[in-house]
Amino acid sequence: MSSASIIPEYEANNAKFAAAFDKGDLALPPSRHVAVVACMDARLDPAQVLGIELGSAHVIRNAGGRASDALRSVIISQQLLGTREIVIVHHTDCGMLTFSDLDLKAKVRNDLGENVDHIAFLPFGDLKQSVLDDIALFKKSPLVLDVPITGYIYDVKTGKVEKVQG
Amino acid sequence: MSSASIIPEYEANNAKFAAAFDKGDLALPPSRHVAVVACMDARLDPAQVLGIELGSAHVIRNAGGRASDALRSVIISQQLLGTREIVIVHHTDCGMLTFSDLDLKAKVRNDLGENVDHIAFLPFGDLKQSVLDDIALFKKSPLVLDVPITGYIYDVKTGKVEKVQG
Repeated sequence: MSSASIIPEYEANNAKFAAAFDKGDLALPPSRHVAVVACMDARLDPAQVLGIELGSAHVIRNAGGRASDALRSVIISQQLLGTREIVIVHHTDCGMLTFSDLDLKAKVRNDLGENVDHIAFLPFGDLKQSVLDDIALFKKSPLVLDVPITGYIYDVKTGKVEKVQG
Repeated sequence: MSSASIIPEYEANNAKFAAAFDKGDLALPPSRHVAVVACMDARLDPAQVLGIELGSAHVIRNAGGRASDALRSVIISQQLLGTREIVIVHHTDCGMLTFSDLDLKAKVRNDLGENVDHIAFLPFGDLKQSVLDDIALFKKSPLVLDVPITGYIYDVKTGKVEKVQG
């Protein structure tokens, strides 16, 4: 199977974007002092979903939007760039609900011939609990400042975020 | 210092977003089989910069857009969700150019009273080399499939991406 590279499209899109670009004077530190931690899912665009203005917030994304995997970035965001609020966004129909850590380790061993016991893939079985767990991880970490943390579940069918309450 | 929480704005923005939302039928696997790895910088919105359509690509973001920190997510993206191309985006005026790993470790020890020798913060001194290094890390990793990888430097002053050639 082969499909056409996305590169020509991305470069043509960027040429149009740059031609209309007028935000060249934004400062390095996020103007609203926020770090958003969200899943990498293709159906979730945090900037659109939350209306994040350019220059206002760090956006950290990984498979599942997991806190432990975002820790390096959050420390840099807080210690060097002054963010003082965290927003976590997981979502319905997440791929992380579809496998176990052991499943994926076995697949990698079978398909790639590699041992990945050293990587925790961080799937979860309960979406709401995954958000609560990630809020708790940041709250309890001595490496993360005591800042407001809000967790949401984004519904990929409706476009709505729902706040997760402990 | 205290500043108002972003939450009321995000929730009002999302209500508007959801009211106009009409993309509820997108599939879980990215339709264009692409994983984008980009910096968390507040001035870089990969979806806008590259014209990424909703549902088409995973977007992984961390401090610097570093490959090693994105490895867990890339493995999940390729092994479970079928992406077969990687695009890396670093950018000018990156915070990762402004500190050393030892500096930040010392700051965390001083300010938080914690030892973080176990975390590699992954700053870099040469922007172009950081992109080449991250392409090479993916290319050489036995955990990453042999897929096309393109690296860009995004110019936060002009909005343009420049392809990085080895």
